[in-house]
Amino acid sequence: MKKIFLLSVFTSAIGFAQTSDEAQLKAIYSQALTNSKCYSQLDYLSNKIGHRLSGSTGAEKAVQYTKTQMETSGAFDKVYLQEVMVPKWVRGEKESAYINTNGKKITVPICALGGSVATSKKGILAEVVEVQSLKELETLGAEKLTGKIIFFNRPMNPENVQSFLSYRDAGDQRRSGAKESIKYGAVGVVVRSLTFTQDDFPHTGNTGYGDLPKEKRIPACAISTNGANLLSQTLKENSKLKFYFRQSCYQEADVLSHNVIGEIKGTVSPENILVVGGHLDSWDLADGSHDDGAGCMQSMEVANIFKNLAYKPNNTIRVVMFMNEENGGRGGEKYAELAQKNNENHLFALESDSGGFTPRGFSFECDDESLVKMQSWKKLFEPYLIHSFTRGGSGADIEDLKSKRIVKAGLRPDSQRYFDYHHAANDTFHAINKRELELGAGTMASLIYLIDKYGI
Amino acid sequence: MKKIFLLSVFTSAIGFAQTSDEAQLKAIYSQALTNSKCYSQLDYLSNKIGHRLSGSTGAEKAVQYTKTQMETSGAFDKVYLQEVMVPKWVRGEKESAYINTNGKKITVPICALGGSVATSKKGILAEVVEVQSLKELETLGAEKLTGKIIFFNRPMNPENVQSFLSYRDAGDQRRSGAKESIKYGAVGVVVRSLTFTQDDFPHTGNTGYGDLPKEKRIPACAISTNGANLLSQTLKENSKLKFYFRQSCYQEADVLSHNVIGEIKGTVSPENILVVGGHLDSWDLADGSHDDGAGCMQSMEVANIFKNLAYKPNNTIRVVMFMNEENGGRGGEKYAELAQKNNENHLFALESDSGGFTPRGFSFECDDESLVKMQSWKKLFEPYLIHSFTRGGSGADIEDLKSKRIVKAGLRPDSQRYFDYHHAANDTFHAINKRELELGAGTMASLIYLIDKYGI
Repeated sequence: MKKIFLLSVFTSAIGFAQTSDEAQLKAIYSQALTNSKCYSQLDYLSNKIGHRLSGSTGAEKAVQYTKTQMETSGAFDKVYLQEVMVPKWVRGEKESAYINTNGKKITVPICALGGSVATSKKGILAEVVEVQSLKELETLGAEKLTGKIIFFNRPMNPENVQSFLSYRDAGDQRRSGAKESIKYGAVGVVVRSLTFTQDDFPHTGNTGYGDLPKEKRIPACAISTNGANLLSQTLKENSKLKFYFRQSCYQEADVLSHNVIGEIKGTVSPENILVVGGHLDSWDLADGSHDDGAGCMQSMEVANIFKNLAYKPNNTIRVVMFMNEENGGRGGEKYAELAQKNNENHLFALESDSGGFTPRGFSFECDDESLVKMQSWKKLFEPYLIHSFTRGGSGADIEDLKSKRIVKAGLRPDSQRYFDYHHAANDTFHAINKRELELGAGTMASLIYLIDKYGI
Repeated sequence: MKKIFLLSVFTSAIGFAQTSDEAQLKAIYSQALTNSKCYSQLDYLSNKIGHRLSGSTGAEKAVQYTKTQMETSGAFDKVYLQEVMVPKWVRGEKESAYINTNGKKITVPICALGGSVATSKKGILAEVVEVQSLKELETLGAEKLTGKIIFFNRPMNPENVQSFLSYRDAGDQRRSGAKESIKYGAVGVVVRSLTFTQDDFPHTGNTGYGDLPKEKRIPACAISTNGANLLSQTLKENSKLKFYFRQSCYQEADVLSHNVIGEIKGTVSPENILVVGGHLDSWDLADGSHDDGAGCMQSMEVANIFKNLAYKPNNTIRVVMFMNEENGGRGGEKYAELAQKNNENHLFALESDSGGFTPRGFSFECDDESLVKMQSWKKLFEPYLIHSFTRGGSGADIEDLKSKRIVKAGLRPDSQRYFDYHHAANDTFHAINKRELELGAGTMASLIYLIDKYGI
């Protein structure tokens, strides 16, 4: 009888805990969907401030705006800036490009890749070699590539349901195409935009030259998928066509910028820190509503939800808006460097940097035991249609963050539309759905709540 | 030893079946994402044909277009039309409305509800009583409502993650607001649009008068949410304001239309029928890309996928595009009536009528045993992020379909954006994402494949 009695108490205790968590998640999601500021704040960030490329006026306005929003929200015990030197790359005049074939000039939409050097003022005009991979450069060799523009045209693989896999796989062309092509005497690089959509938007993103001195670097641009299809087709008809492009981008000296941090001090273990964040910088072609205005506003919303529910966390919660994820990652580096220097104990870090779409779950970087613990919470999220708790990457800005034991996570929204907008001129507020954004904030707040309550 | 040997064979057989199904689903999804016609066909249906309200020219063009597409696809053994008489309601001239307060006329966007009667040619001008529910009419009574325009302003509840629940709950105002208001001497009805978004689109949809004779019916319209907010606010400032609206919609005699049916004859049990479909009619304010062009094109795609994979089904598969779901349901009724008359044995019916967004799962109408069977397949779908296999409604067009034993299912896409577009002028092709649409087709084909192989 005693045994049965104990079992019954135990079951009932679990039952109670479960019910209390269920109620708390319900309250969190209800706040997110009915009383949230993230949509209107993103509207302001996107439509009143606009693009926030590191070192730009927009980036500094965004630092001030989010700092003020956090200060006046009443949700934080402390709001402060963390200084960080960031690279400043400037696009310059709008780029231009055309295909020159049989006496005709056919204009196509391009944009300089981030970090690229300019062409000469007159631009580059050269024959084109189309390739599908970096490997193919090696096969063709300097004999066939010297003096040519290399056209990387391997599309993102549409068969992956998880679109980020296709981005990762096709992304080497953009990231390393220029650096590799230089080895074979190429004079310029044109990369097919990293999107599934067939349209007229060129998608920028960083390209790297490694340690190559500036005078050896060659200009690299992205071409829209429609432009890439046209260029490829025209090459089939006339392999001797020439491609022209002109861009006037340049790198300035590093400038001072900031991570923006809001802190809610833990009531029980203030020395333990939980981070939730996104990156405040964006590319310069649009206002970066999905990448990553959404993640920043959702992170601020986590604190607003806790304030509205009068939830006082056991551990210290930091909302961190990192600077310079897109073309340097300096904000994340600086945050990790200072965390280590100050002997801070980070238990957990969560980044939202995959767009403001309907949340589907999280991916976790952690040990097996922690993963099992996180996955045990999955059923609490199922009423909100959150179903995916997998092992995987977390976020670029929290990559460097280390502690004795830390769990890192990335919010995983539905990814089908993300690359329609990613790094392109259409990543604007029009593509944000209020409910989807809010559900992401609620999902983030729910996980932070559970980690705060149960630890890792 | 013998026992162990048997167990091992059994395990291996299950293993093999599993692997073969995994491979088949992979092939199906791959076809859907790389070799599908549904996006371009929807482009044609939406942009070349346009709206398809029952009895309209567009509806008949859509019948001919889809019939021809199925005939020329080579995916079917037989393509035919099924005659059905449908109601013909015509919107007439564009509606107009304004708030008349303190000598000012403030224009607001409205549209007639489907099935509504017209106002007089001069329009209606009357004082307004705002209510939140049908119940409130009873409380207020004829004394306060006679001669008034009733303004139903209860918003859809944003707290439901499953947005269709909010639609169902708020929908009584649109469906029955006019019929109920007539009992208390009201002269017109204005209903807040059924959407979560705050914007300028009025959302139509059917309203019913029951058996009331025509001369007793009062006109009913939908007002955009921005318009509803303004009207409500202005009423607070001036309860004696007047509202004006004018609409010239009318009902014509029923006309002949058609369900469009394509059939793949079963190789083993041709007498058993599996249906997959959507509804071909739409409301008249837009081209109905999500409601329900998407579902029709996805259904045709199921057959294309099977053709491309050279999959010959055991049972007969019918792709059915039903006519007149929106304002009568006559297509579904006719299909069910003939199925019964011809003693057809339907094992299964699947409808896609919740938009062309990322598929999340299915809801099933069936007995417990069948539900367990369906749910046992869930893990096959998880690589495609399909996770929701629940009990629930299937689809309006297959509602009447009965057989000795039948499983009915509805495709359940992500529902956050659906009511942004539903029955409004912005339900156009621009809101369709190619990959999301295709994933829906792949998900439908996968379920049909499993049912065809394993039965119910």
